Order: sequence, then C-alpha cells, then structure tokens
Amino acid sequence: MSRRPVIAIIGSGSASEPALSNTHELGRLIAENGWVLITGGRDAGVMNAANEGAKAAKDSLTIGILPNRQTNASPFVDVAIITDAGEGRNNMIVLSADVVIACGVDDAGTASEVALAIKNEKYVILLGANDEARAFFRRVSETGVTTVESAKDAIAVAASLLDGRPRVQISSHE
Amino acid sequence: MSRRPVIAIIGSGSASEPALSNTHELGRLIAENGWVLITGGRDAGVMNAANEGAKAAKDSLTIGILPNRQTNASPFVDVAIITDAGEGRNNMIVLSADVVIACGVDDAGTASEVALAIKNEKYVILLGANDEARAFFRRVSETGVTTVESAKDAIAVAASLLDGRPRVQISSHE
Amino acid sequence: MSRRPVIAIIGSGSASEPALSNTHELGRLIAENGWVLITGGRDAGVMNAANEGAKAAKDSLTIGILPNRQTNASPFVDVAIITDAGEGRNNMIVLSADVVIACGVDDAGTASEVALAIKNEKYVILLGANDEARAFFRRVSETGVTTVESAKDAIAVAASLLDGRPRVQISSHE
Amino acid sequence: MSRRPVIAIIGSGSASEPALSNTHELGRLIAENGWVLITGGRDAGVMNAANEGAKAAKDSLTIGILPNRQTNASPFVDVAIITDAGEGRNNMIVLSADVVIACGVDDAGTASEVALAIKNEKYVILLGANDEARAFFRRVSETGVTTVESAKDAIAVAASLLDGRPRVQISSHE
Repeated sequence: MSRRPVIAIIGSGSASEPALSNTHELGRLIAENGWVLITGGRDAGVMNAANEGAKAAKDSLTIGILPNRQTNASPFVDVAIITDAGEGRNNMIVLSADVVIACGVDDAGTASEVALAIKNEKYVILLGANDEARAFFRRVSETGVTTVESAKDAIAVAASLLDGRPRVQISSHE
Repeated sequence: MSRRPVIAIIGSGSASEPALSNTHELGRLIAENGWVLITGGRDAGVMNAANEGAKAAKDSLTIGILPNRQTNASPFVDVAIITDAGEGRNNMIVLSADVVIACGVDDAGTASEVALAIKNEKYVILLGANDEARAFFRRVSETGVTTVESAKDAIAVAASLLDGRPRVQISSHE
Repeated sequence: MSRRPVIAIIGSGSASEPALSNTHELGRLIAENGWVLITGGRDAGVMNAANEGAKAAKDSLTIGILPNRQTNASPFVDVAIITDAGEGRNNMIVLSADVVIACGVDDAGTASEVALAIKNEKYVILLGANDEARAFFRRVSETGVTTVESAKDAIAVAASLLDGRPRVQISSHE
Repeated sequence: MSRRPVIAIIGSGSASEPALSNTHELGRLIAENGWVLITGGRDAGVMNAANEGAKAAKDSLTIGILPNRQTNASPFVDVAIITDAGEGRNNMIVLSADVVIACGVDDAGTASEVALAIKNEKYVILLGANDEARAFFRRVSETGVTTVESAKDAIAVAASLLDGRPRVQISSHE
C-alpha cells in the first residue's frame, strides 16, 4: 500500500488578495492531483483558503495541525490534529509533508515554517514571495528553494519533486 | 460541513493475542462506522493491528501520530503526522480524538496516554484492562472511565458517547 | 565540570495536607543536598510547596517547566521555562531529571508523569502513594518503582540511586 | 522575590570566527550582569561558546534546552532541559527569554528561532547579521528588530530593553 503524497501549504492567517485566490487554486489543484493537503488548520487566511480550495475537488483529504484546542479549525478541514504545542506545531506541519509550499512569506509565523522546512531538509517552494524573503532563504538554504509566481507552476514543481526528477527552476525572476 | 468523529486506539507496541485480534476487530468496526482512526502510527503491536483492521473496511481513514521521522509507520496508516515530539506525542493523540479506547493498559506508554486523556477530559474506554489499571484509573478520574470486555461493546459505548447519550456502563465486571 | 544532579518533584496542583508539608520538606532537603529542583513550575499545590521548600535552603536552584505563557509561575521558581507544550511538558519534566519523586499520585496529570518517567526509564520514587497507584505502577514498570512514606526516606533512596548503588527498598509497606 | 532576567543566545552549531569570539564575550557579559543565559545547549558552535563565556564569570547560570536525550550537552551548561521536541524546542528557547540575541543568522535553524521570537513578540537583537537577514526580518517584524555589530552594543540594548526604556537603535548601519 503506498501512501498518498502530502503537501503542506503555509502562509499568513491574515493574508489578503491576490494571495487568497492563489491559495484557493493551489488547494484545489493539490486535491485534484490526489495529494493530501496539510496546513496549520485555522479558520483564517491562507489556511482556510487552501482547505476550501481542496474541498472543491472530489476525494480530497485535508488535515489541519492546530496549535491548541481553543483555536477554531477551518470548516474545510477533514481531520483536526490538536497538538497543544503552540507555535511548536509549525515544525510538525513541515515534517509531515513531502513538499512545502509557502503562499507568501509576509509574517513571522510563515517565516519560521519556511526555515524549519529547510532545516529539516524538505523541498520548499515559495509562491509569490517578496524579494527579501527570496534573497534570505536562498542564502540560508544549501540546496536552494524554488520560487514561482503561479499556483500552476507550484504544482508543476511539486510534481517533479515528488517524481524524484531534478528540481525544475521555473521562475525566471532570478 | 460536519467533521467525521475521530476515535483513538491506544495500546502497547508489543501486545500479543488476544489483544491483537480484539484491536483488529475494533479498527474494522471503527472504520465501518465511518469514524476516523487515530493511533500512535508505529508498525508494531496494537497500532499496526488497529490500522490493518480499519483498512479492511471501505472508505476507511487512518491517521498515525508518529514520535519522529526515524520511526517506521504502519503500512496501514493513510497519513503519517511526524511530530518530532517523542513521547510528547501521546498528548496529541488523545487531544485529537473524540473518544479514546485503550486495548489493554499493560505498559507505561499506554498508561501515560490514558492518564493524559483523563487529564484532558476526554471520554476513555478501557478494553480488556487488567484489574490494577481499572482500579487506578477509576480512582484518578472524576467522571469515571468505562470498562468493557469486547470490541463490540467498546463500539457501542463509543457510539453512545458520540451521540451525547448518557454514558452506558456495559461492563458487568465491576 | 560535572553537572549537579537534577531531581523532579511531581504532584497535584490541588494537593492538601499532609502532602504539602511533606513536599515542602522534600524540596528543602533536595536543595540542602546541592541538587537542582525541577517541577511543573505552577503557583499551586505540590509545585509551589516544593519550590518554597527549596528556596529556604542556601544556594538552591529551582527550575519550573511551565505549560504556556499564560500560566502563573510559582514565585519560588528561579528560572521559568515556557514550553508552550501544554500537558506535553510533562514528558520534559521527567526527561530532564535524574530521579523523579511523586508526592502523591492522586490526579491524572501526576499519573501521566509517573508513566512517562517509567517509559523513559527514569528512577521513580512514590512518596505517600495510594494503594491503587502502587499496585498499578508496580505492574507496568519492569524494574519496579520505589515506594516510601517520608521525605527523608525519599532523599535516602534518591541519594543511593544517584550514587549508582543498588536500589534500596526502604518501604516496609509491601 | 524577583526573577533574574533571562537572555537567549541563538546561532549556528557550526559557526566560526569571529562569531565564536563575539559569542564568548557576549556570554561572559550576560553572566557578569547577573542575567541567566539560555541556549539550545548543544556542545557545538555558538551554543558552546556562549556557555563557555558565561561560565568564565562568577555566579553565572546557564540553561541548555536540548532537542533530545541523544544530543551531547555543552559541558558549560549548568542545567540541561531535555525536551524530546526536536526543532520544536526552538520555540521554547525564545519563549523562555526576556531578550533574544542572534549571533549571526547564517543557517535555517537560527532563522526559525528569530522568526519564532518575533512571532511571540519577544525583543530580538541581531548581532553581526548578514544583509539579507537584516532586510528580511525588518520586513516581517512589525515593531522592528535591533541590529548591532558588537557584543558590548548587544548588552547595552538588552539592558535598556530590560529596563523598559525606549529601544535604543545603536546600529548606524541602517
């Protein structure tokens, strides 16, 4: 029995457009590929948009890794894992994923998740990241992170990483 | 959208018969009820038997909460959550479940899970527990734990708890 | 440079007499022996009494391992470690200690700590434990836990364990 | 009884000169101010240098927050807290400190700690940080991080923060 690939979408709980639309599309595409979606699970921002997008697809599976039992889970999360680990849960989100996709790196929480993903030697894709984030994470990652500008490109890179193909550098930005 | 109930099965990684057969049946019945199964996720003992049982049912969903990335996951786990929290994950297993069922309380790890479930005010069902475990956990639990002798009875109690019905004391043992 | 031994005192946040007096004496004796005291750090019950006892001794050092930043620390804790791990911190308290002493095992939180200490193969001393706790933990521990009835006896056992001497079974109770 | 201030020093386990000399001086100055030093506790890089510096001062107190029991603690750590939380311990290091000082932000682990410190609204001082780190963390921090170029300046800023004085922007760098 082979396990379905798991993709983490991370990003701010107070994200706005166009990040939310991008994220919604990304969640849907992940589910349409038959991959499991994992997020921080909260009923806010990127987390909620990603799960809502995924649940628009048939046979989707969405897992939310929540900080504690007081936090409201997104209604689009199928299974809520209550860690009682506060921000320590960020490490669990990225450790449980085969590929980590950040939809914007505009807040400190997401920054910690990208950093922990790199530290744990996970594949990291930055979607629509600001210039400072690109420059910084390129510097602290030995193998490099991939930067993309659209949900479709993020999915293409994720697919190639899951296949074990050489990492495609889609972004022409740098 | 209402979330499927989540049932945790806990027990020893080195359990033997008849605990393993009981657990296999329990996992199957949980899945047949449409409930999500959550366990410690390891490829051993009660954890593996529960997940194997669940995967024998259609549309089953099994989540394993693993201590770290070095641990082998049961092949019957659909999604493996890597906590990197060691035994600290025991708290997450019980916090994420609506009902916790212990298949035997014969080792210290399971004992910690039962205790944490009570501490977190979760419903706890002891299946086939030894006399010392029954006596001790009855003492430290204010609302009482339910003790049963068969997988079928455990399921009946779980169903009534999930329905919000008064807790049925099935066991005639005490 | 050799590190000072670390002793954990665990017990209920709502303990009453005579447990509190026992714990106060135990904390003082630990500090007088030059050992570091580690507890769950809260401003309540056994945790507070142990730290208050320790600070009555010269050159004492008390470390509190707190569940989160909202919890009030005992004023007798020298250093407060904020884990943001909820009850998951129980695992850290016992892992960080050379010897774990439970002052009563009357609530589920303490029960989880005793169980995790055994699981992590730590020396465990039960001071003034109820009969059900003695019977249960004797059963789930392969190497046995030591039961005592006074703070002085707990210290004598701890000293022999730290010296690597064969574990003394002081209690005539069983 | 008022608790001694706690300062966290974070940085790479594989740091080299001049970061190590800076860190050693910083550890010594922290201890000479009567503050408690908290680090990731490993016997490597910034962690070891900071603790060695602190122990050169009288009445110093050094606490190491270690990822698990397999990790070697620095011999200059007075008390080793074993979290069994892997990289999840990074959150605990910064949560337990009044002020967090990063000696270089050259690896992903340190980046995660700086990000978590900002997320938890802790005071953060970057000592000798690279340009990309300065630019990125200035962007994701609402209240700003302070950047300095010497251990002495880091201490001066920390002292003013602990006094509740307005944050001094010592660095002329930006």
